[in-house]
Amino acid sequence: MDQSTAQKSTQAEREHKPHVLTLPLEQTRTDRNPHSYERWLVAKLMRMAGSPPVRFRLWNGELIDIGDQEARFTIHLSDPKALYSLVTNPNLAFGDLYSAGRLEVEGDLPDLMETLYRAVHAARQKWPKWLEALWRNHNPRPTGIAEAKENIHHHYDLGNEFYQLWLDHAAMQYTCAYYERPELTLEQAQLAKLEHVCRKLRLRPGMTVVEAGCGWGGLARYMARHYGVRVDAYNISKEQLTYAREQARKENLDQLVNFIEDDYRNINGQYDAFVSIGMLEHVGKENYLALSELIKRSLKPDGIALLHSIGRNRPMLMNAWIEKRIFPGAYPPSIGEFMEICEHGDFSVLDVENLRLHYAQTLTHWMERFSSNEEEVSTMYDEHFTRAWRMYLAGSIAAFRAGSLQLFQVVFTHGDNNRLPQNRQDLYAFPAAPEEA
Amino acid sequence: MDQSTAQKSTQAEREHKPHVLTLPLEQTRTDRNPHSYERWLVAKLMRMAGSPPVRFRLWNGELIDIGDQEARFTIHLSDPKALYSLVTNPNLAFGDLYSAGRLEVEGDLPDLMETLYRAVHAARQKWPKWLEALWRNHNPRPTGIAEAKENIHHHYDLGNEFYQLWLDHAAMQYTCAYYERPELTLEQAQLAKLEHVCRKLRLRPGMTVVEAGCGWGGLARYMARHYGVRVDAYNISKEQLTYAREQARKENLDQLVNFIEDDYRNINGQYDAFVSIGMLEHVGKENYLALSELIKRSLKPDGIALLHSIGRNRPMLMNAWIEKRIFPGAYPPSIGEFMEICEHGDFSVLDVENLRLHYAQTLTHWMERFSSNEEEVSTMYDEHFTRAWRMYLAGSIAAFRAGSLQLFQVVFTHGDNNRLPQNRQDLYAFPAAPEEA
Repeated sequence: MDQSTAQKSTQAEREHKPHVLTLPLEQTRTDRNPHSYERWLVAKLMRMAGSPPVRFRLWNGELIDIGDQEARFTIHLSDPKALYSLVTNPNLAFGDLYSAGRLEVEGDLPDLMETLYRAVHAARQKWPKWLEALWRNHNPRPTGIAEAKENIHHHYDLGNEFYQLWLDHAAMQYTCAYYERPELTLEQAQLAKLEHVCRKLRLRPGMTVVEAGCGWGGLARYMARHYGVRVDAYNISKEQLTYAREQARKENLDQLVNFIEDDYRNINGQYDAFVSIGMLEHVGKENYLALSELIKRSLKPDGIALLHSIGRNRPMLMNAWIEKRIFPGAYPPSIGEFMEICEHGDFSVLDVENLRLHYAQTLTHWMERFSSNEEEVSTMYDEHFTRAWRMYLAGSIAAFRAGSLQLFQVVFTHGDNNRLPQNRQDLYAFPAAPEEA
Repeated sequence: MDQSTAQKSTQAEREHKPHVLTLPLEQTRTDRNPHSYERWLVAKLMRMAGSPPVRFRLWNGELIDIGDQEARFTIHLSDPKALYSLVTNPNLAFGDLYSAGRLEVEGDLPDLMETLYRAVHAARQKWPKWLEALWRNHNPRPTGIAEAKENIHHHYDLGNEFYQLWLDHAAMQYTCAYYERPELTLEQAQLAKLEHVCRKLRLRPGMTVVEAGCGWGGLARYMARHYGVRVDAYNISKEQLTYAREQARKENLDQLVNFIEDDYRNINGQYDAFVSIGMLEHVGKENYLALSELIKRSLKPDGIALLHSIGRNRPMLMNAWIEKRIFPGAYPPSIGEFMEICEHGDFSVLDVENLRLHYAQTLTHWMERFSSNEEEVSTMYDEHFTRAWRMYLAGSIAAFRAGSLQLFQVVFTHGDNNRLPQNRQDLYAFPAAPEEA
């Protein structure tokens, strides 16, 4: 990564800094004795969550341990209101309280979150209807052209400098890496992902590619550099595009790669390949059929499309806290909903690969780097922001480990295209990861 | 293939020979001049079918060529009634008339069928509602336990001797082969398929496998022989099981492979792997969720399941003639319906591979062998049967070539299983096909 680039873009970033989290670190501490119904509430909460090996320490120091299993974690609550919001809306409150420092965790955070996810997943089968309704997540906010701009700005325009603190230095990839071998570095695994995607698209020199949602342009530049293709890369994040264009110029790739500041819905022309890595999560279910039609008309008769997205084993709403604080409008499709996109376009699905545990490992690498840069993050933003992002990264590791999130790479083509690869052997002909990175 | 086995089982076959096609070769020939509305009907039929490069020769020798494209095929109709049934119910009548010798084709049969499928697929978007309704296929017949027995008997108990005339001699596989290289023989490609499936299941010695719908037992014996696993293999076709057991005894595999004459719905126990090759087509949509639950309870916590089935890009009923005359109760799921099975069981889909063109090649190999044995088939059954099977094989080649049928191999596991293969590289570590077979 080039540090001077980072420095230059910082000025611009500061000027239109997106709305970061602004909840105050509420100081409502008390040491009054808990009421007996408060103790009962904690126990009830734990039982409803499937009795995970967790105990609570309340504001006065009192320990509550339901003791169904030996506790491996302790959750501290700073005040009675924290308990009430946790009990009434745990999906939202857990993250908010943690961010505000009103909920503290003793024990490994990703580990605790995975334990909670697994326990709740098993327990919710037995929840009464009223509890299911009380604790449900809500529909994601809309993802029309204007709203999408706002949604994307909220997350991806936080500042390139911030993301450079913990993303890989090889290609600035903010999506699942491909750990061809478990011991790969983050950089190697991200380059391996780019290579794996190019191979799945069966790119050849001179081909044309359109990329929907190109992030900082790492894939677009990789395709041009290593496969000699021409790329039109769409994005609506200004910050990311500034970086992407500057890098392309430096690498003399600006003749091959065209970065376009526009919504993916405005893609036109016909291409040999359509690729989108980590955008579908932001598209919104209501736009799937339009996306399908867009790919239909953007793909040449023998073109290949690849969608890479976080997904689910079955339809489920995004965690309320993530949707509200981290990724507005986000909705990861179930594998069936994913296939609706393919069915609607009469596409033929050629290949689906699930890289779930690769995302857990990617996130673990990100969190390691994030953790060692927390002081700098707090200076850039504030402690609340730092805690929120720590929770987001830890919760995401946990979700992929517990199987509540999946990572699907889906390759498809027009239904009547017979120019297909013989099999998938070519994807594995030689290592995808560079020896060093 | 062991010829003495084939001879021995022939006696049994003759005794409870299933209902083969019994439509008479109707002789309703005439040489009267066609009425003008009959000429109009032919032209209308062709236009509704998307004006493929086909001309008709009517019973009196008169040629009707709408001339939208230069004709590459000529279809002969022996009598006016043939025209009427073709116009009112083409899906059913085309195969029936061909079987009865009242419709003859000049030109390559698979090629004609592919041309028709492609033309109709494009044209049907513009069909008026009444035509869509008139020419629709019907729901497949039921697939309850008793009906399934009848359905399977109809097709798979035609006699091992018959299938031995044109299936591979290495493993008697009546499902899509895997052409790792395009020049493989049918035998090599079928063994490569078995090997590919075993690798996807990540079999290790001592594991236990349950197979739902085991055909003549080729996969079960291969798994035991090459991977040292114990297999419970279910089937409701008596003919197939007789052969399967005899082969297992001869190969000294009867300690490892247990062939069970029972419906897949009666599988019990827990296994390291659940595999089903070419049975899902016969399961029936109404039984998908029960199948999902069955797999759920039959699979150990870290077990892997593989379903291999003909499928569709979008939901569509089976061709009426195939469902009525060839495969009673058959319904190939769309990729979305396939995923419903996985979603219902909260399974995590790890891998989907589409082998569509491999099935076209498999069927081409089958048809070559079938064609050179047609005389023997006619002696075994009758000319009507021979023509019906010729049409079935040709139509199937065409359907896979035209993309109206797909072949999906889907690998999945319990949603909370983290003992997953690192990636798919191991599937391609060394050739799957033997050097000779």
